[in-house]
Amino acid sequence: MKTLFGKRRRDLLAQLASAKLHGLLISRPANWYYLTGFTGDSGALLATKYGTALVTDGRFTGQARQETSGVRIVPQSGSLLDSAGAWLVGQRVRRVGFDPQQVTVAQLAALRKATGSRVTWVPVAGLPETLRMKKDPSELAQMRKAALLASEVVAAAANLLKPGVREFEVAAEIEYQMRKRGASGPAFETIVASGKRTALPHARPTAKRLAKNELVVLDLGVILGHYCSDITRTFYLGRAPERVRGWYRAVQEAQVAAIAAVRAGATCGDVDAAARQVLAGHRLDRHFVHSTGHGLGLEVHEDPRVAKGQTRRLEPGYVVTIEPGVYVEGVGGIRIEDDVAVHVGRTEVLTRFTRDLIEI
Amino acid sequence: MKTLFGKRRRDLLAQLASAKLHGLLISRPANWYYLTGFTGDSGALLATKYGTALVTDGRFTGQARQETSGVRIVPQSGSLLDSAGAWLVGQRVRRVGFDPQQVTVAQLAALRKATGSRVTWVPVAGLPETLRMKKDPSELAQMRKAALLASEVVAAAANLLKPGVREFEVAAEIEYQMRKRGASGPAFETIVASGKRTALPHARPTAKRLAKNELVVLDLGVILGHYCSDITRTFYLGRAPERVRGWYRAVQEAQVAAIAAVRAGATCGDVDAAARQVLAGHRLDRHFVHSTGHGLGLEVHEDPRVAKGQTRRLEPGYVVTIEPGVYVEGVGGIRIEDDVAVHVGRTEVLTRFTRDLIEI
Repeated sequence: MKTLFGKRRRDLLAQLASAKLHGLLISRPANWYYLTGFTGDSGALLATKYGTALVTDGRFTGQARQETSGVRIVPQSGSLLDSAGAWLVGQRVRRVGFDPQQVTVAQLAALRKATGSRVTWVPVAGLPETLRMKKDPSELAQMRKAALLASEVVAAAANLLKPGVREFEVAAEIEYQMRKRGASGPAFETIVASGKRTALPHARPTAKRLAKNELVVLDLGVILGHYCSDITRTFYLGRAPERVRGWYRAVQEAQVAAIAAVRAGATCGDVDAAARQVLAGHRLDRHFVHSTGHGLGLEVHEDPRVAKGQTRRLEPGYVVTIEPGVYVEGVGGIRIEDDVAVHVGRTEVLTRFTRDLIEI
Repeated sequence: MKTLFGKRRRDLLAQLASAKLHGLLISRPANWYYLTGFTGDSGALLATKYGTALVTDGRFTGQARQETSGVRIVPQSGSLLDSAGAWLVGQRVRRVGFDPQQVTVAQLAALRKATGSRVTWVPVAGLPETLRMKKDPSELAQMRKAALLASEVVAAAANLLKPGVREFEVAAEIEYQMRKRGASGPAFETIVASGKRTALPHARPTAKRLAKNELVVLDLGVILGHYCSDITRTFYLGRAPERVRGWYRAVQEAQVAAIAAVRAGATCGDVDAAARQVLAGHRLDRHFVHSTGHGLGLEVHEDPRVAKGQTRRLEPGYVVTIEPGVYVEGVGGIRIEDDVAVHVGRTEVLTRFTRDLIEI
């Protein structure tokens, strides 16, 4: 692993060189892990052509030394950004990048104050994130495991769905099953929604009891060995009425079309359009209120966005979710979500659980 | 509840008036809930003297209408900040505040572009956060329940601690117990650390098995009815050696001193100093590598910071954690944490579980 982190830092330095930057401030914890192996959640990572430093406070310095190799651990003294600025000034780097989508207005002011005129701060968005989109074989292997684990948990949870059980009890059991199977935890707050609440795409589990003749949506993911998975399945408690079956078939068809559109060279907008077009054919497109998917990796939402008009082209190594849905306010909603990896000449669906409507 | 949200919005407007602002962009989800009851996690809340608007996308508009009252729900069209800017321009507000500690450099650029010269963007930090520090009786009632629930979960988890059990199994059981008792989930990733790993204040649960003659640190909190709790206890599997007992007594003494220092009118720096002074008396202050505590409420870390040199004075209604610790790299660590509410003339410890060293 340690040589892998070193390779990624070299790739980043090559990016910096082509942007004519001497260094980069990296403020997102997932990028710290990607580049160094550090798993703490407070600090500032500074990559420069003269070396890499991680500034962090007393809670994390011991951990940082254990987890990283070839990285200078700089204990924070005073404010974090003062310490980061002082280290940069000591390195005599002049043009340093920062991500304007991550650095706050107050942080940029603090950085400018800390480095004075000796550093020119250059906005440059998404540098490590661009590298992270393209998963290497070890990352793909880990993501396969994370996706399989989530699929197993869906299967286990399906057995619990019956009238009378509370949504939060199902969620508790789901997260328990994740941990028991070795996940470090859920990748996001598990969604268990039933009845009308399924029309809310981001419903949190409540004390509501599942009831007969209702839809149930489970949307869950695990973090396993630092990598995320994300899967959604929709169930019906009882025999689904024809209208619900019609919606389900439309969503399923939209997902098939979008997965078929996933391939190296296709734009993310093309993939989104494939799902949207199918739903439009069923006059359901206005009920598809979110985008078709998102990148997945160390974070559960990362680049690329699989959304309307996105011109980014998929490449081998990308992993995205494909999750069309239909939501009818006051009635209910349906979503089917899988994780899909792009390879040379083929795609691979990482999640494994039937995509047919399950009536319980 | 709905009148409570309205009152909070009126309190915010009074703050805006004294800052000579016509409106405020509020970008933090916990502030949205505090001011409107909305629990979604994507959007922009705009409070102006002419009314309050919540701009959000199709995933959340239905939910926003259900959860709020007296708030205009504006469906996002195009980018979030374009929609927010357009609404503000339509309201003819000129001086609008934003929090420079929350708004990114890219967001401010987008806001400026969206409103052009018709809005002057004014940095103003922590306006709703200042209101949130002072909990009202309904919030305190909820926080008492959240603290009691966390205390019960510590008691339940204590029964599980024995050699051979894996850290993550204990964490899974803890989070399961939270949900089963009605919590909407953990307030943060549950910490279960054993042996040398207790020297890492933020250790994540791993597959390591608990072993005889080891320290075990449990640090957990729940979200119950939107409010957080946070409690830490340290255990010893076996009969603790004299050195560990000495550390434990020192931390316990430091916590007693810091809790005694919590009172309306005291500065947060005073409270921190009380803990630090006791540990210095035991020559352990250099092993106390973090601050003494933090505010607690809708978020698990909120204002005020109970840290060195903080001049903010405690007031009735504030709730803070008091969590001194001692960490010896390569050996182990001890932390004791409780949640403390400030009242007129007295303090109230919300968490309830013995603070003595438990040898199992």
